[in-house]
Amino acid sequence: MIDFAAVEAAFAAHAEADPTYSAQLAVHIGAERVVDLATGALQADSLLPVYSSSKGATATVVALLVERGQLDLDAPVASYWPEFGQQGKAAIPVRQLLSHQAGLPGVDGGFTWEELLDHDPLATRLAAQHPFWRPGAGFMYHAVTIGTLADELVRRIDGRPVAQVLREDVTAGRGIDLWIGTPASEDGRVVEALPPTMEELTAGPLPPMGGDPLAGLSLPAGDPLAMFSLVNEEHFRRVGPPAAGMLASARGLAALYAATCHELQGQPRLLSDDTISQMSQIQVAGVELGSGLDARFGVIYMVPCPPRWAFGGVGTFGHDGAGGSLAFHDPNCDVSFGYTVQRLPLPGGMDARAVELARLVREALRAG
Amino acid sequence: MIDFAAVEAAFAAHAEADPTYSAQLAVHIGAERVVDLATGALQADSLLPVYSSSKGATATVVALLVERGQLDLDAPVASYWPEFGQQGKAAIPVRQLLSHQAGLPGVDGGFTWEELLDHDPLATRLAAQHPFWRPGAGFMYHAVTIGTLADELVRRIDGRPVAQVLREDVTAGRGIDLWIGTPASEDGRVVEALPPTMEELTAGPLPPMGGDPLAGLSLPAGDPLAMFSLVNEEHFRRVGPPAAGMLASARGLAALYAATCHELQGQPRLLSDDTISQMSQIQVAGVELGSGLDARFGVIYMVPCPPRWAFGGVGTFGHDGAGGSLAFHDPNCDVSFGYTVQRLPLPGGMDARAVELARLVREALRAG
Amino acid sequence: MIDFAAVEAAFAAHAEADPTYSAQLAVHIGAERVVDLATGALQADSLLPVYSSSKGATATVVALLVERGQLDLDAPVASYWPEFGQQGKAAIPVRQLLSHQAGLPGVDGGFTWEELLDHDPLATRLAAQHPFWRPGAGFMYHAVTIGTLADELVRRIDGRPVAQVLREDVTAGRGIDLWIGTPASEDGRVVEALPPTMEELTAGPLPPMGGDPLAGLSLPAGDPLAMFSLVNEEHFRRVGPPAAGMLASARGLAALYAATCHELQGQPRLLSDDTISQMSQIQVAGVELGSGLDARFGVIYMVPCPPRWAFGGVGTFGHDGAGGSLAFHDPNCDVSFGYTVQRLPLPGGMDARAVELARLVREALRAG
Repeated sequence: MIDFAAVEAAFAAHAEADPTYSAQLAVHIGAERVVDLATGALQADSLLPVYSSSKGATATVVALLVERGQLDLDAPVASYWPEFGQQGKAAIPVRQLLSHQAGLPGVDGGFTWEELLDHDPLATRLAAQHPFWRPGAGFMYHAVTIGTLADELVRRIDGRPVAQVLREDVTAGRGIDLWIGTPASEDGRVVEALPPTMEELTAGPLPPMGGDPLAGLSLPAGDPLAMFSLVNEEHFRRVGPPAAGMLASARGLAALYAATCHELQGQPRLLSDDTISQMSQIQVAGVELGSGLDARFGVIYMVPCPPRWAFGGVGTFGHDGAGGSLAFHDPNCDVSFGYTVQRLPLPGGMDARAVELARLVREALRAG
Repeated sequence: MIDFAAVEAAFAAHAEADPTYSAQLAVHIGAERVVDLATGALQADSLLPVYSSSKGATATVVALLVERGQLDLDAPVASYWPEFGQQGKAAIPVRQLLSHQAGLPGVDGGFTWEELLDHDPLATRLAAQHPFWRPGAGFMYHAVTIGTLADELVRRIDGRPVAQVLREDVTAGRGIDLWIGTPASEDGRVVEALPPTMEELTAGPLPPMGGDPLAGLSLPAGDPLAMFSLVNEEHFRRVGPPAAGMLASARGLAALYAATCHELQGQPRLLSDDTISQMSQIQVAGVELGSGLDARFGVIYMVPCPPRWAFGGVGTFGHDGAGGSLAFHDPNCDVSFGYTVQRLPLPGGMDARAVELARLVREALRAG
Repeated sequence: MIDFAAVEAAFAAHAEADPTYSAQLAVHIGAERVVDLATGALQADSLLPVYSSSKGATATVVALLVERGQLDLDAPVASYWPEFGQQGKAAIPVRQLLSHQAGLPGVDGGFTWEELLDHDPLATRLAAQHPFWRPGAGFMYHAVTIGTLADELVRRIDGRPVAQVLREDVTAGRGIDLWIGTPASEDGRVVEALPPTMEELTAGPLPPMGGDPLAGLSLPAGDPLAMFSLVNEEHFRRVGPPAAGMLASARGLAALYAATCHELQGQPRLLSDDTISQMSQIQVAGVELGSGLDARFGVIYMVPCPPRWAFGGVGTFGHDGAGGSLAFHDPNCDVSFGYTVQRLPLPGGMDARAVELARLVREALRAG
């Protein structure tokens, strides 16, 4: 019997240290949920906008097409999506597109939130875009466009958008509580994501931008702080852009990753070991254009890259969100981990408390 | 009506701060020249050796062949220049050769200024050279050889050398005042480029070399300081190696970039948007072999790479010269910029004052 | 007549500074040995475990197959070793495998010293392994597996293991005193390699690991310090894993590199200039996964990468060993250099004293 008292104590200590701390933590060992905590304004079944942790669900839908033999990561994107072959992009393989290497973090002249939410306008512009760098010459986090690119690819192959495949083939039958395109029926459980306080925003360290002209490409035009309110709007939640529009509980996040390799509620595991190997394999590693920071990506999934992203051992795959959430599966200890937090911790991205909680989970396993 | 008073004031302030300051500044907005300044020993129509700013003109000649459909950046160099295919170089594509990636910054045993000025001897040796690194495994600024390599490629395709194509197809009909192979008729306007003072050379920070054995490959054998006098010699000026032998005024430099995308003196713009996209696309980014510094290149053109080369927004293309000159086109504000300075500012490369002047030009546009 | 008095004086000074200093130094200029020193517990003909300096001999055996036209560095590994083509590895070219880029520093679940020493079990597992990163997406020193990979490749092509080709085709006829698979007949000359003292291990700087999960992949399971005693065991010496199991004298190391390009004892030079160019060409350069340090590799051979590995000029090829040994050929001065030291100098890898001695050798040549 494994004792997670230290994990629970640390979670409680965070709440004690900060009375506004509102967070959820859920952990599976194998198929079984062994940790299930919530504090502050969040109940264990509250749903929170999780920003880029959405990409982990989108990645899992892509993985499902790989599992089914419908998507070959080495095939040209244009073989599934012919219009994509414009502007010298005919040969770009799927794995390059889905690991932030194809030079499409944005489009000439910028794009709007409306184009993103309508999907088709942005997908059409991305298909017609000349890559900002020679595909493969570098990589930069496609913060928003990777969702549109993956979504269009899934639509062309499966006929359904990512949101629908996720619901019908992944979450519904398995009781996985997360939603890309959250229906009104769930609105009663939704809790608003909170931005950093004004004190934090003016005093705290903002993400380094380094003046790199590429850095400005990846977000929609307009005030970047608008995102903080947008994620809480009903229309945004209903549509759910696959890069950043998911709502989830920690329970849902942990269950999503557990379902990749374990039977849940009588439904078969989603992915074979071979598909997981393909998706979690490091596709790109090094200094990211735009931020100048070290990063590594699998196929859409993030993979650990210390010291910035020290969330697991070899073969771990997952994703974090700007709002502080973190979710992953670590095959070395068969841990599936889900964490949400209501208030975005600066500088944004995975909450340091989540990484510490993940460390304590592993310590408990070693002791247990 | 845009007010460039702040630009003019900053230029004047530099002259006041340093009585030996001799410089030119010319700026186009669209096709029109809106700034035209000169100070010190330089008149607005003086011609100065501009070192590697020459590469911007060479790049434009290469772009012209792309525009005409005569040169395919993805084709093997050897398809145009069969002898180049020796020593495992048969498959190297043009875009790799012309972005400092093909491992040919020099030749075994070094080369001489004479071989460079005679062109054929160095071209022949480069064709027979085994790359110093696996092409594509990295990149290092081919300070001198990239001119010879591009020149031979142009000669094989067009029949004329870069210097002649530049004069006949680019500058003559458009009143663009720069010269690769400066004729005696222009000698009356030539002003000598000045080296750093001895005090500066001994006290000032020299470019970091890091002891990298590759660093020594790219310059001709002998005293590197010889370059400072060589650029002022008549024979050097008459021949004009396409990597570093151009003479130009700031007017000429700005007009060259304006002509890429605007009609000048009734002559059609040189390049389509598509060709500009191809040439200015980031071909390589990261840590340069030899210097250990961060750099990015398009096809011959330099592209912005902060903090070292923070001269423009996304899509900007240009080049600087060791002597301090800087010239570029920034499509975001339709600015074409030319700057020369007589005395090389250490550590060499674009004068920090030029970058500041470019910033003030953009501020004037935003305010205007 | 070149005067190596300064080299000899420095070597003697090291011995004076540290009474336990036991080392060997041998230097060839061209075919001729011009320096031949030993001190402390080592005689000039003592044999010492040299850890990864073994890889220089393995590289030379691979080079011999290239020289003979039996091995094409651009061919897929699977064309020689069909089982290797599993798990998406069908297209990996030999040059990528043999420069630490193919993502095979270890195997899922780790491997044992027994599997390494038996060769076949580890080779079979490597053939079945899914690469830990997309081949070519990065590189990380395959500290142990590169020996097994190269050995299997040599066995498939030549029919003999690396150890046997080395003895029969390289060392025996040329009097090169080094052994992969040391026979009992040589045991009388074997001196134990010594680990760092406990004081050094606890106080001294250990190699930075950075918490990178990849870092743990490359060594066999169990206590990493076990290696210190293992290299001295008879079974380890008899088998001689090609990555790290060689015993050598400095004489042997220097002669090995001299033999690549010079006739020794009436036997023809081993390699043509063309083969040497291919093997010593930089195959990969940049920040190594796992360590986060800058590194460069040729085909198995290490090539200089200052400041960490500043052992020669352009075209130099060689290898160091964790125990402190260093051996290389520098074509710029035709120096072949061999150095061993009995006690591992922290942080491990080439002894700083060896680099300094190599510098003094070059100074003597310049003066001479």
